[in-house]
Amino acid sequence: MDVSIINIGDELLLGQVVNSNAATMGRMLTEGGFEVESVLTVGDSREAIRQAIDQALRQSRIVLVTGGLGPTKDDITKQVLCECFNSRLVESKVALENVRRIFTARGFELTPVNRAQALVPECCEVLNNDLGTAPCMWFHTPRSVLASLPGVPFEMEWLMQNRVIPKLQETFQTGTILNKNILTQGIGESFLSDLIEPWELALPENIRLAYLPTAGMLKLRLTGRVQNIQSNRITLKNQISEAVEGLYKLAGQYIIGEDCETLAELAHSTLLAHSLTLATAESCTGGAIASALTAQAGASAYFRGGIVAYSNEVKESALGVQHSTLAAHGAVSEETVREMAEGARRRLGADYAIATTGIAGPDGGTQEKPVGTVWIAVSSPSGTHAQLLQFPGRRRQQNIERTVNQALAMLIKDITKPSITNKP
Amino acid sequence: MDVSIINIGDELLLGQVVNSNAATMGRMLTEGGFEVESVLTVGDSREAIRQAIDQALRQSRIVLVTGGLGPTKDDITKQVLCECFNSRLVESKVALENVRRIFTARGFELTPVNRAQALVPECCEVLNNDLGTAPCMWFHTPRSVLASLPGVPFEMEWLMQNRVIPKLQETFQTGTILNKNILTQGIGESFLSDLIEPWELALPENIRLAYLPTAGMLKLRLTGRVQNIQSNRITLKNQISEAVEGLYKLAGQYIIGEDCETLAELAHSTLLAHSLTLATAESCTGGAIASALTAQAGASAYFRGGIVAYSNEVKESALGVQHSTLAAHGAVSEETVREMAEGARRRLGADYAIATTGIAGPDGGTQEKPVGTVWIAVSSPSGTHAQLLQFPGRRRQQNIERTVNQALAMLIKDITKPSITNKP
Repeated sequence: MDVSIINIGDELLLGQVVNSNAATMGRMLTEGGFEVESVLTVGDSREAIRQAIDQALRQSRIVLVTGGLGPTKDDITKQVLCECFNSRLVESKVALENVRRIFTARGFELTPVNRAQALVPECCEVLNNDLGTAPCMWFHTPRSVLASLPGVPFEMEWLMQNRVIPKLQETFQTGTILNKNILTQGIGESFLSDLIEPWELALPENIRLAYLPTAGMLKLRLTGRVQNIQSNRITLKNQISEAVEGLYKLAGQYIIGEDCETLAELAHSTLLAHSLTLATAESCTGGAIASALTAQAGASAYFRGGIVAYSNEVKESALGVQHSTLAAHGAVSEETVREMAEGARRRLGADYAIATTGIAGPDGGTQEKPVGTVWIAVSSPSGTHAQLLQFPGRRRQQNIERTVNQALAMLIKDITKPSITNKP
Repeated sequence: MDVSIINIGDELLLGQVVNSNAATMGRMLTEGGFEVESVLTVGDSREAIRQAIDQALRQSRIVLVTGGLGPTKDDITKQVLCECFNSRLVESKVALENVRRIFTARGFELTPVNRAQALVPECCEVLNNDLGTAPCMWFHTPRSVLASLPGVPFEMEWLMQNRVIPKLQETFQTGTILNKNILTQGIGESFLSDLIEPWELALPENIRLAYLPTAGMLKLRLTGRVQNIQSNRITLKNQISEAVEGLYKLAGQYIIGEDCETLAELAHSTLLAHSLTLATAESCTGGAIASALTAQAGASAYFRGGIVAYSNEVKESALGVQHSTLAAHGAVSEETVREMAEGARRRLGADYAIATTGIAGPDGGTQEKPVGTVWIAVSSPSGTHAQLLQFPGRRRQQNIERTVNQALAMLIKDITKPSITNKP
């Protein structure tokens, strides 16, 4: 069952806000058995919104619209929906009750601007928004359904989960889609493609492969699809298991994990599964490793803490790096990164520690240590090992992301494949 | 001059990758004097890509396409472009030379799969991609131009900056668009809207206002537009300055800064402007404050370092929080957060320190300290002050972002408006 998504907002076209809603909705709809056919972003313009909705209703049986439901003058989605469905704005009791409830809870008085949040096109059904004052509106045409949601990400996500997807599943009979992620590391897209070509060509017709490269990691995604019958779903699971087995035979040495979106997720589950604790000592990544891990609920079970040692003084005082080491080899060196990792492990009392130091760019490089020079170390009860990376670009954010991913990959490999990593 | 953007990729529709390219392109095009009219995302399907391109060429004079140019089987954009422009794939000398150069530099052999990267539709002009093997292709129709770029973000960005935007500016006469951001804090969208309504209604017709709320901060954006004549540009600048002045008169106490996208940017420039150094002590934000600051080039001029003190032991050992304080008041308390900030300032040797401790969720709350309870402290030579926040939701990522923004706002206010903050 195909879905057209329309995201409304000048800020999206101007690039001041990244459209994360589209990705969130895509993920949730895919998991719910729906397929997103297109995502269209338009500005806060009556004509553009009208045209987008009319076309989407002609094209798709399910249309989801976000944005333009706020209380301010640039929010015009409800007026346009009235035009599209030949309706008029009326005050909804359900929506007004919800606005009142939220304002009472926050201890604020209901202003006329806020009361206007309860106006909705007469022909729609209001799906209650527990988290905000903008209502979620559900429309029918003989051929399609349309739901209009607020653009505020957490309200949209809650409404999708609790209102829209259940109602879509009730309205339409959906097929089953199964996704399987395989995370690889240490091989480029074109080389992996050459290596696994015979396997890829032999995949069943209902299974598709996608290559999803990110900074320092290449994710493969298998997507299988069947009609929604119990026996089909079992067959699909077996097909995907067989495909994964075949992939391991050809490219097993590059596979670092399965069923995760990111290496931070994989590191999280690996540390939990092995009941190991972790500390970090970050220079060039500036807290990005700690932040990626602690963004996940439950990180406190393994994450002891981290030191962001940006200045040399902090490397000495907080991590115990020797002054003589920094003087002799510099902050970006094997000697320093090893002492950082060992210092973090000892001082923060963890089983494992990761350390990073490097020149993320865009400036700050030298002839000997150009931008993109990075040292990573992993320290564990069985020893410390360090690796030198040399990234080609000068882009700071990319070099930081690559370093984060390489460091997490080193940690994961050290825990799960201790025999093949280099020990001193 | 209106632009239609088409981003191609199943991974975007499935929500496995957030479409950051659209935002990057939107920002660059806006700055370059162009206006993005729509962004359409479609999957790796021949029919969908074909239809999207045909429609965009009918609708817009400028069409920019990203994605589907990789060496793997799911990349079919070039074949579809041949259909659209009634052309055929030929090997481009320029593109082949580029592929060869990149493979030589990396020390790899050129495989047939990689050589195929140099195939392009015969009718296009190749714009050289210095950073990758996928070519950028430029097409003309009597009415429109179309450029096809790789979807890899840093290659796309480099090509936009160095190839596509200069060529568009050469081809079309562009008008001038000026944007002005005003960051506000401590007031909700609807209350601010009420407060500034008379000012908003009196804005000149060529200036538009948008409200851009994010977790813990509300950004206002004024967008002005004129024909590209010198005298117009001066008038526009004056119009915007006047509008900003009027805004300060009505809502000055909520304005925390201008000309920034984020509070991390504003904190960065504020610290640099005042030649102050900073240290962080993070518990519930887990390194997100340090990471947001150090993502910006030049942070080493003020950022000394940070401690991510996730466990109580690390709060004691690395920050010097008293054992008795933790025992008597708990980790999430005013007493603890003050000692964290003071410990970070002293131990890391900085002028200022920010500290956070709280319960980010989704679990871990108690009756007395529910999820969303957060303490923030700012410590400086003139004293330490702490603030209690109580966020309503259980969403971890949102609570972390709100805490980061509130902490940065407290820091900025403490530096720029020291008289109005509460000192002990």
